[in-house]
Amino acid sequence: MTPAIPWEERPAGTSDVLWRSSRNPIVTRDAVPRANSIFNSAVVAFEDGFSGVFRVDDRRRTMNLHTGWSDDGIGWELDPEPIAFRPGDGRIPEIQERFEHAYDPRVTWLEDRYYVTWCNGYHGPTVGIGFTHDFEAFHQLDNAFLPFNRNGVLFPRRIGGRYAMLSRPSDGGHTAFGDIFYSESPDLVHWGRHRHVLAPVPLTWQSTKVGGGPTPIETDEGWLVLYHGVLTSCNGFVYSLGAALLDLDEPWHVLARGADYLLSPRETYERVGDVPNVVFPCAALVDREADRVSVYYGGADTVVCLAHGHHSEILEFTRS
Amino acid sequence: MTPAIPWEERPAGTSDVLWRSSRNPIVTRDAVPRANSIFNSAVVAFEDGFSGVFRVDDRRRTMNLHTGWSDDGIGWELDPEPIAFRPGDGRIPEIQERFEHAYDPRVTWLEDRYYVTWCNGYHGPTVGIGFTHDFEAFHQLDNAFLPFNRNGVLFPRRIGGRYAMLSRPSDGGHTAFGDIFYSESPDLVHWGRHRHVLAPVPLTWQSTKVGGGPTPIETDEGWLVLYHGVLTSCNGFVYSLGAALLDLDEPWHVLARGADYLLSPRETYERVGDVPNVVFPCAALVDREADRVSVYYGGADTVVCLAHGHHSEILEFTRS
Amino acid sequence: MTPAIPWEERPAGTSDVLWRSSRNPIVTRDAVPRANSIFNSAVVAFEDGFSGVFRVDDRRRTMNLHTGWSDDGIGWELDPEPIAFRPGDGRIPEIQERFEHAYDPRVTWLEDRYYVTWCNGYHGPTVGIGFTHDFEAFHQLDNAFLPFNRNGVLFPRRIGGRYAMLSRPSDGGHTAFGDIFYSESPDLVHWGRHRHVLAPVPLTWQSTKVGGGPTPIETDEGWLVLYHGVLTSCNGFVYSLGAALLDLDEPWHVLARGADYLLSPRETYERVGDVPNVVFPCAALVDREADRVSVYYGGADTVVCLAHGHHSEILEFTRS
Amino acid sequence: MTPAIPWEERPAGTSDVLWRSSRNPIVTRDAVPRANSIFNSAVVAFEDGFSGVFRVDDRRRTMNLHTGWSDDGIGWELDPEPIAFRPGDGRIPEIQERFEHAYDPRVTWLEDRYYVTWCNGYHGPTVGIGFTHDFEAFHQLDNAFLPFNRNGVLFPRRIGGRYAMLSRPSDGGHTAFGDIFYSESPDLVHWGRHRHVLAPVPLTWQSTKVGGGPTPIETDEGWLVLYHGVLTSCNGFVYSLGAALLDLDEPWHVLARGADYLLSPRETYERVGDVPNVVFPCAALVDREADRVSVYYGGADTVVCLAHGHHSEILEFTRS
Amino acid sequence: MTPAIPWEERPAGTSDVLWRSSRNPIVTRDAVPRANSIFNSAVVAFEDGFSGVFRVDDRRRTMNLHTGWSDDGIGWELDPEPIAFRPGDGRIPEIQERFEHAYDPRVTWLEDRYYVTWCNGYHGPTVGIGFTHDFEAFHQLDNAFLPFNRNGVLFPRRIGGRYAMLSRPSDGGHTAFGDIFYSESPDLVHWGRHRHVLAPVPLTWQSTKVGGGPTPIETDEGWLVLYHGVLTSCNGFVYSLGAALLDLDEPWHVLARGADYLLSPRETYERVGDVPNVVFPCAALVDREADRVSVYYGGADTVVCLAHGHHSEILEFTRS
Amino acid sequence: MTPAIPWEERPAGTSDVLWRSSRNPIVTRDAVPRANSIFNSAVVAFEDGFSGVFRVDDRRRTMNLHTGWSDDGIGWELDPEPIAFRPGDGRIPEIQERFEHAYDPRVTWLEDRYYVTWCNGYHGPTVGIGFTHDFEAFHQLDNAFLPFNRNGVLFPRRIGGRYAMLSRPSDGGHTAFGDIFYSESPDLVHWGRHRHVLAPVPLTWQSTKVGGGPTPIETDEGWLVLYHGVLTSCNGFVYSLGAALLDLDEPWHVLARGADYLLSPRETYERVGDVPNVVFPCAALVDREADRVSVYYGGADTVVCLAHGHHSEILEFTRS
Repeated sequence: MTPAIPWEERPAGTSDVLWRSSRNPIVTRDAVPRANSIFNSAVVAFEDGFSGVFRVDDRRRTMNLHTGWSDDGIGWELDPEPIAFRPGDGRIPEIQERFEHAYDPRVTWLEDRYYVTWCNGYHGPTVGIGFTHDFEAFHQLDNAFLPFNRNGVLFPRRIGGRYAMLSRPSDGGHTAFGDIFYSESPDLVHWGRHRHVLAPVPLTWQSTKVGGGPTPIETDEGWLVLYHGVLTSCNGFVYSLGAALLDLDEPWHVLARGADYLLSPRETYERVGDVPNVVFPCAALVDREADRVSVYYGGADTVVCLAHGHHSEILEFTRS
Repeated sequence: MTPAIPWEERPAGTSDVLWRSSRNPIVTRDAVPRANSIFNSAVVAFEDGFSGVFRVDDRRRTMNLHTGWSDDGIGWELDPEPIAFRPGDGRIPEIQERFEHAYDPRVTWLEDRYYVTWCNGYHGPTVGIGFTHDFEAFHQLDNAFLPFNRNGVLFPRRIGGRYAMLSRPSDGGHTAFGDIFYSESPDLVHWGRHRHVLAPVPLTWQSTKVGGGPTPIETDEGWLVLYHGVLTSCNGFVYSLGAALLDLDEPWHVLARGADYLLSPRETYERVGDVPNVVFPCAALVDREADRVSVYYGGADTVVCLAHGHHSEILEFTRS
Repeated sequence: MTPAIPWEERPAGTSDVLWRSSRNPIVTRDAVPRANSIFNSAVVAFEDGFSGVFRVDDRRRTMNLHTGWSDDGIGWELDPEPIAFRPGDGRIPEIQERFEHAYDPRVTWLEDRYYVTWCNGYHGPTVGIGFTHDFEAFHQLDNAFLPFNRNGVLFPRRIGGRYAMLSRPSDGGHTAFGDIFYSESPDLVHWGRHRHVLAPVPLTWQSTKVGGGPTPIETDEGWLVLYHGVLTSCNGFVYSLGAALLDLDEPWHVLARGADYLLSPRETYERVGDVPNVVFPCAALVDREADRVSVYYGGADTVVCLAHGHHSEILEFTRS
Repeated sequence: MTPAIPWEERPAGTSDVLWRSSRNPIVTRDAVPRANSIFNSAVVAFEDGFSGVFRVDDRRRTMNLHTGWSDDGIGWELDPEPIAFRPGDGRIPEIQERFEHAYDPRVTWLEDRYYVTWCNGYHGPTVGIGFTHDFEAFHQLDNAFLPFNRNGVLFPRRIGGRYAMLSRPSDGGHTAFGDIFYSESPDLVHWGRHRHVLAPVPLTWQSTKVGGGPTPIETDEGWLVLYHGVLTSCNGFVYSLGAALLDLDEPWHVLARGADYLLSPRETYERVGDVPNVVFPCAALVDREADRVSVYYGGADTVVCLAHGHHSEILEFTRS
Repeated sequence: MTPAIPWEERPAGTSDVLWRSSRNPIVTRDAVPRANSIFNSAVVAFEDGFSGVFRVDDRRRTMNLHTGWSDDGIGWELDPEPIAFRPGDGRIPEIQERFEHAYDPRVTWLEDRYYVTWCNGYHGPTVGIGFTHDFEAFHQLDNAFLPFNRNGVLFPRRIGGRYAMLSRPSDGGHTAFGDIFYSESPDLVHWGRHRHVLAPVPLTWQSTKVGGGPTPIETDEGWLVLYHGVLTSCNGFVYSLGAALLDLDEPWHVLARGADYLLSPRETYERVGDVPNVVFPCAALVDREADRVSVYYGGADTVVCLAHGHHSEILEFTRS
Repeated sequence: MTPAIPWEERPAGTSDVLWRSSRNPIVTRDAVPRANSIFNSAVVAFEDGFSGVFRVDDRRRTMNLHTGWSDDGIGWELDPEPIAFRPGDGRIPEIQERFEHAYDPRVTWLEDRYYVTWCNGYHGPTVGIGFTHDFEAFHQLDNAFLPFNRNGVLFPRRIGGRYAMLSRPSDGGHTAFGDIFYSESPDLVHWGRHRHVLAPVPLTWQSTKVGGGPTPIETDEGWLVLYHGVLTSCNGFVYSLGAALLDLDEPWHVLARGADYLLSPRETYERVGDVPNVVFPCAALVDREADRVSVYYGGADTVVCLAHGHHSEILEFTRS
């Protein structure tokens, strides 16, 4: 039985489409010994509760992925040890020799298992892929793309018979540019048919770069995509959260795109931390019947936060 | 009858020349629906109260100007709709075709009306000019200068028979340099006789750039100019507020310039926000008889704040 | 009597719209003692020969303007002393106090005299204006614009009753961007009504910046404007020469613009010098009856060169 | 019958492993009307002569590919029209909508046809793939990778049952970094199994970036790879040519790598041009029996050049 | 009699090797009139209490050194006037002519007096040296090194008969690189035998630069060195505190180096201030018998803070 | 007997203070097998001819020093093997472990031997020192300074009892800034008393950086210093040669400084090469009786060149 997704009603006095959980931040560094920060993490319904893959930067500032479990999606227990990916096929050891880092995970139920994608260090950042059946044993596949790439997000089903992924080609540093592209694969190992999807929009909250967020949400009208956009202020970056709607069959066609952001740094836990002014979504839980969406996002590259909204209103918002 | 300007006495235990209002921030995003932030705004005495032009960045992060009204200069009501400038002459539509943004307004009573200057987007930032008689209808004139320019501040009367403006030539991004210049005009449309006024001062709070602030305040000794100066720290910019005294007849001659800043980010609402560590003055109300000056400034590019000081002490300060 | 402009027929075997003089370079550093280089210079018909204003960088690398005279437009005699501009009105000494440099001159016959515009150092580069009746005495007017600006080019008659100028707002260094704007003045001192004219074109010879060249040439179809455009290669800039046609009455409307360049560095005197790979036009002599245009341009920021073409073909070219 | 590859013996008095053709440059802009430059081009034996795909930048500075034919590999006739790629499958029109540029081609005989790879503009540079049977009709396949990528070079046969390609991930500008990677494909459309091959070597001629050159040459000892390496001097880049030997079965293992360059800019046609100091190899003709290799390379991004060497000596050189 | 060093026991529920004082920040700008901020300061046991040299940036943002006294190392009284260094020998006036700034002091008891080192402005930042016997009169020696250098830290005794110093060569701005070097001197005036000690470690908290902190602490196993390391995040720098162990006789040999940081910005007074996210250690008090170390560090370039740890555990930590 | 220094009279028709040898370039890469380029080299009178230390970059682009001998100072024979420095004292092996590069040598007769200084790679560029008695055996001393430093030039005698050196602190890359400093040493190992000597001059040929050249020439009026200065053009750097006169006893006092350059890139061998537009002086031979100075300089970082001038005229020039 699917558990009820975590939820709080919209606070009185606001008409925001997305609103913050009053319990934010819901996960902090205290959840793992020697952790510097826990943020930008991905959560799915699993069995009669929730499981997740969390970004945990330790005090060496090595970036690792850790598993977590929760009954209610709010209180989380994390494995103190990083996930040790087993080779998913005979050639994976070739890329595992030199582990650099693993960060910003996404998790997607696809066909028969949970796939994890993340930013994987292999002579530069690229998109790592792995899977698990049980959130105990994790298996690694080959990196999807050449460096430099980040924010790889799998679609939850095949499209036109092919696996599909969004990603954001970038560079080896803290990239000051970035568009979202779509790629296809027959086998989750070889990727092609790359198509451009979303570009930054000058003079807005998403003027510097955009990157995929949670697993795309299938709706009757298209794929609802929550993503982050970045603005370069007079004094650094501001990361916000927005939404767009992609064509169901040819997702590189953008049907609608919300002009405003849905969430932007405002609370102290989003404004103050290792990276000031960051709201970075990595997962969403959806209850279509209840018209509810709960979004997990990182705050200031330091903590895990939660926000809520109505599915129908978010869809409506993309057309604004 | 001119209303009393907002005022608080100097707090006990400090000898600061300028001190903050205990009611800061006095205007926040809540004053306008869909606002991301309200800051860097200009206020004048109007009829038996106060009116102002406010910088309101919406959640698309488009920068707009909005009108506001107040009885006491502290509590403000803002028009939820941006100011829609009507063409001030037949050729203004040529520059209005492509509205990009309007921000950092100043307001000046000059001869028979209130003039507004702001940073206007026209193939890059430049200085927009408009006017109003009633803070209801606003009329736009032609941009004063070629891009790239910001922080245009009109003098409150003609000097040598000409209209006069301070501005800060810059570039198309978040300029890491900038001096204040003086320019003249016979008609507020054509500008010339550009003269250099103030340069940054190495190794001080104003080492990176300086830019005009409130409308210059005429005193017996010269034009009292409050302005912002910027320092580049190990980790970003710090915007502070200082003062100088310019010659009454040839304002490009600097008679005195305060070595210290008058105000620098210290409170949380100045340190934490969309742009950390910003104090940015745009307007001042002066009561000469009471020896009072109240300065409106933006905090962290997020809120509107207020500070108070004695006219005579600020003048004295410029000679320090 | 107007002298015949310098001319060579199109070399056999080429169909180029513009072709180089076989006598290039026509002026080198040897024309002035202590000169490092002579280039980017402006030439007009004067009395029964030609006169010009030349950019001469001396061996201190100070940039100065010198007068030159020629019988045939090919052989030039230059004044070994820089032009000493006399104040054109009582306030010019204010900007003459601190001479930094004067470079890239243009000369235009306008109403009753020859006007000179150049890049003038005044707390950064801006557009200087002066005039002469006789190429003996030169008088300086006020700078047209605030810094940072370059490539100011006057139109040869009033348009809509106003003097008119093209310029290229830039920054204080070796600007890697730049569009051409149009500005108007009632008196050549105060300027306004700034309008955008030409932007760079991505992925072409003019992708980095564009700037005005010779005095616009009035034709029945519009103002024929020769200008330079810059491409950023894998290893520096390449400056080329192109053409556009502007509306006679509203010159900020572009009627036609040649897609190709007309001239790009190819000869050693354009490829090798103080600044490799530069073709930079500053003047054109036109013989409408003979359908001839001769363009003076700088080569590699080191020498003065000459190119020829047919007026009708260049016009035709702008429509390609 | 295979024609004799172009050849000149080593000049007396030198022991260089690679030496220049005395007929350099062998192709210049004159070979195509409206060409600005012809360089970085690929040549193969075809029927009883040679064919090639040439990089031709026109005078708009659009980068195009043109076909060429030659009897002796020295004298070339080029098609004045760019290659118009026909869609190789039904989805190619999706990426052909917006042609930006096509440059730096390589040509490889693979199984039953000639494949062409090039740098293809699709929201940034990436690796285009096409094929031809006859150098008349060309068919385009999908781009191999996401942007930003350049210097895609196909291996001339399958390795481990998969198509194989070298490429150099880069960024959207004139990338100041770059390593060579290896990728595999079952179908020339979807690519994966990306492996790192060659990194720059600090403090040498290849300290800034390296990129693939001609089609790898199969030898008994491994794949002989000629490539370019770039050094950042005090005043720009220097592009040179070097060699390495890769494992036959696992080409991401480097068996040997020549410490010196084989060719570096020295002649005027390599030092002076649109991009100074560039030697850029794109193709090699090999006559194993005669122990001859002839390398086609671009000079100064302006002309096509030719160099010769002995196969055995080049192999020997990689072990130096 | 040596006073007890300030101390608090480790808070319950944490196993951190270093923990913060509950009284942080212990010194703020209020300690000196006209101070903007007080931070990055050095403290030693002196007579029956403690003395120190404090970095005080005034409101002009001039950086000065001030003396301070304390009974308990927690409550501090500071001299409102900056230290005026007297020439330590006849040639010191040559470098004192042009005082720019003095910041980031360290204090070391060496042989017979307290030596002070600091970042001294002399045509760029370099390492200043002075001494005092009584914290009343201070005498300046010559700068140790050429610009650009910072973070000069003297060893507390001669090594191999020579005075010894750590420093961090840098550049004239906010250096984004930096290694720690060791230098020797026979007389504290002339320095040589420069040896490399510590480099940044890629992909960790100390990936951008490292610099010396408190006076090295002599232990039986080597010199215990606390130092700062800097990481470049997506949005600025993060300064943390770590530890290493150097060979007693050849301190350029690193015996051990802690992989994790010991302290990284976490509290508001470390995260929010003139420079966000800074923990910067400058001094340590050691009580070997009690196994206690108390570290003074700057928070956010704004305040002075204190942290405590056990000597034995810190040593143990360096071997982790 | 001292040999006659190489000499050519001033060419007819020029009044240049320094003129080029008609035999330039006098040394090219052909002088050493596997050399990429030979330039920036130092020459002294030795026995009855001349000896020198030459910068030879090999084809790996490793920078080495080689010895050379000449009868007439024009024709040179170079050792095909790089100089192998023997440890000058027991601690030199500590810095020799990791040889990176050695370049831009200077040679000075000082007291009883020839000292060589060069740019030595030790965790960044710094100033290496060595000596030879016979140009056969060379002995290395410790590096004079911490990185990052270049252009170390010894004075030919002690000043005030101390050895003296000029150097140019820089950074780890192709430094775009740089002033000349003076340092003293009692033993050529430990250095101190650093004094600022020469800064760049804005808006001239030496506006970007300046660095020492040949060994200072002692004259009755002061130390005559030839040095290089660099200008940043619109498209790269230009390196020129100038002169200044320093106080005999306190050489950090500049008595005179020539406003113009003495030599700037003009000939093809100075304009075209691995680094375009470079004239870089490293040595001078002086014949006081004959009033002759012959300067050895590098051309375009590719070849060794020679220029001549009269001692008295160069001195006179510094006062211009």
